[in-house]
Amino acid sequence: MTLAPPPAARVGDPLASVATPSLMLDLDAFDANLAAMSAFANRHGVVLRPHAKAHKSSKIARRQIAAGAVGVCCQKLSEAYPFAAAGIASIHVSNEFVGADKVEMAVELASHVRLSVCVDALPQVRALGDAAARAGVTIDVLPEIDAGQHRCGVTNEAALLALVDGIADQSALRFAGIQAYHGGIQHVADWRMRHDEAKRATDVAARYVRALDVRGVRCGIVTGGGTGTVEFDAASGVFTELQPGSYLFMDGDYGDIGWDGELRWRHSLFVLSTIMSATRPGMAVCDVGLKGLAVDSGLPRSAHWLDASTMPALTYVSANDEHGMLQAQGDMQSDFADLVGMRLMLPPGHCDPTVNLYDEYVCYRGERVSDIWPIDARGLSR
Amino acid sequence: MTLAPPPAARVGDPLASVATPSLMLDLDAFDANLAAMSAFANRHGVVLRPHAKAHKSSKIARRQIAAGAVGVCCQKLSEAYPFAAAGIASIHVSNEFVGADKVEMAVELASHVRLSVCVDALPQVRALGDAAARAGVTIDVLPEIDAGQHRCGVTNEAALLALVDGIADQSALRFAGIQAYHGGIQHVADWRMRHDEAKRATDVAARYVRALDVRGVRCGIVTGGGTGTVEFDAASGVFTELQPGSYLFMDGDYGDIGWDGELRWRHSLFVLSTIMSATRPGMAVCDVGLKGLAVDSGLPRSAHWLDASTMPALTYVSANDEHGMLQAQGDMQSDFADLVGMRLMLPPGHCDPTVNLYDEYVCYRGERVSDIWPIDARGLSR
Repeated sequence: MTLAPPPAARVGDPLASVATPSLMLDLDAFDANLAAMSAFANRHGVVLRPHAKAHKSSKIARRQIAAGAVGVCCQKLSEAYPFAAAGIASIHVSNEFVGADKVEMAVELASHVRLSVCVDALPQVRALGDAAARAGVTIDVLPEIDAGQHRCGVTNEAALLALVDGIADQSALRFAGIQAYHGGIQHVADWRMRHDEAKRATDVAARYVRALDVRGVRCGIVTGGGTGTVEFDAASGVFTELQPGSYLFMDGDYGDIGWDGELRWRHSLFVLSTIMSATRPGMAVCDVGLKGLAVDSGLPRSAHWLDASTMPALTYVSANDEHGMLQAQGDMQSDFADLVGMRLMLPPGHCDPTVNLYDEYVCYRGERVSDIWPIDARGLSR
Repeated sequence: MTLAPPPAARVGDPLASVATPSLMLDLDAFDANLAAMSAFANRHGVVLRPHAKAHKSSKIARRQIAAGAVGVCCQKLSEAYPFAAAGIASIHVSNEFVGADKVEMAVELASHVRLSVCVDALPQVRALGDAAARAGVTIDVLPEIDAGQHRCGVTNEAALLALVDGIADQSALRFAGIQAYHGGIQHVADWRMRHDEAKRATDVAARYVRALDVRGVRCGIVTGGGTGTVEFDAASGVFTELQPGSYLFMDGDYGDIGWDGELRWRHSLFVLSTIMSATRPGMAVCDVGLKGLAVDSGLPRSAHWLDASTMPALTYVSANDEHGMLQAQGDMQSDFADLVGMRLMLPPGHCDPTVNLYDEYVCYRGERVSDIWPIDARGLSR
């Protein structure tokens, strides 16, 4: 006899019967975001390689590719496996890795998909090249340059050229271009300031491309860019490939920044929660906390009731492990006992680590569950 | 053909070959914590019902019960399933729940284990009683009282008495006592102040017990208490049952508070991480960030190298989704390129939500992997 919790939802269920907490995906908004980014990339003649670290779902990756993406990015090698298993033919691991176990994963992946990876140190190049040659696979390598984030990536042109030479020494590796990603500027609130910061990062990338050019090395790909800077990066003439991820979902952090340009994204991702206690005036407690909502970029900025327009406006004010505390602004007197059992949709403050807490998306259109999509790369962080 | 990432570790492996990030459990420290809490509860004549929300592992629950625990607490009904499936015979759901799907889970669980649950509102009592009677099961019910946390629980004696009467009206429910938990005082840093706050919470619980007594209602169980207050609660004469969870692991948050009494806990839980980039002076980047470390209670307070005592002391200063930034204090000049590939053990700031990010504990004694324990309740938050 198996003893396991029942499924949270079944296709065709009304939203009112979905178990909580559940990670909800509004497919109308999702489709609109998917189409808008594809059209945008097409219009600018840049390749779209969306970042799968945001959604961790091969079902979503397939939709991105059907809409024109060339493949996906993953941030970790283990994360790439479910996408390779699902038939995604081109995967870029947009991150450095080190160690024999990681190199073995890269080689195994490269025997199934067209794989590219990032490096920023020569020992990584040698370890990868030796293993790839032994296995008889070819791996595209894109050295990462530090475009201003001061995290990973080479910090000067000599270091880049040394990597390019190191790659050239390896018969099983192929220099394919560079990666220039600046995560820190994605969330700069002011649109004009974000534009200027993106320009600075692009100028850095362009300088490295010229340094290669002077040496007669053609830099086929310049990959990078996130949801916050994609509109500037696409028009830069420097980036050939863009890696946005959060555009599918939006989150509180991206919702807070200015979108004065041609791009607008809709919130499609919510955590569905139930009020499960309300014994004190002015307060209600819902059934989702730290284990169902990433709070590193703040609490949910809003909370809307699933099924009633006349309900009080509540604000999510603090999170415990399994509880969320909600208050009606300026109202610490009302008795909210009648709200127990009512359901709220909470847009997460940060989508990527919130998605990583769930095993599936409960997809809906209007008031009905229309699909269940597994988050098959959840927890794959190696 | 299956295409899946290789296992992170195998029993007998040296720690040096464990894939990163991995959640590591030092079994010597774990065993010491387990034994110390059991001995402590025995000495004080209180029942131990450890909280499984901390570890989410039926392997660990079985060890707690072998060491004398009467059963476990779960915070969610879905969380209780793997423990019931593993043969844990007594489970207390230390939380309110609402909705037909939740009530059905409670009834199903009650047909397999001795189940107790919390309530703080009459409609919950009626829904549960009706369903339990239909299913022919009996459920123990412990109304929760608000002991000062101001989250869930009744806030006055009349409300408690109304719940007791409501439970008495239900043939399938049995009033078993009360729950009084105050999470907010668990982490009060000053030992004496924590003692005084725990005393205040216990006084509140005692007042409710007396109110029942006056009405001739015997309150069999008073359950509550966490790792931070367990030493006070055990000696209070009010609590009959204690619910600590974090004592097995310790975390940064608990490590920061004063332990002036008889109890001391050892850090047994760490995230193993590899330095995967170091291109800038004074900085190194490791391979674990927000998706491998809960940061709601702060970043890891320390970082120790797995295998070398002469390595520089680094501090984890910021987390991105998949990256951790490390600095040597006061040293922004040194080149750390030689650290790439070296491994660090990071004690998480908050153990519960960190555990919830992983699928298994890599257990070790000394320098060898000694076991792999599945985190079978990971993500079960309904």
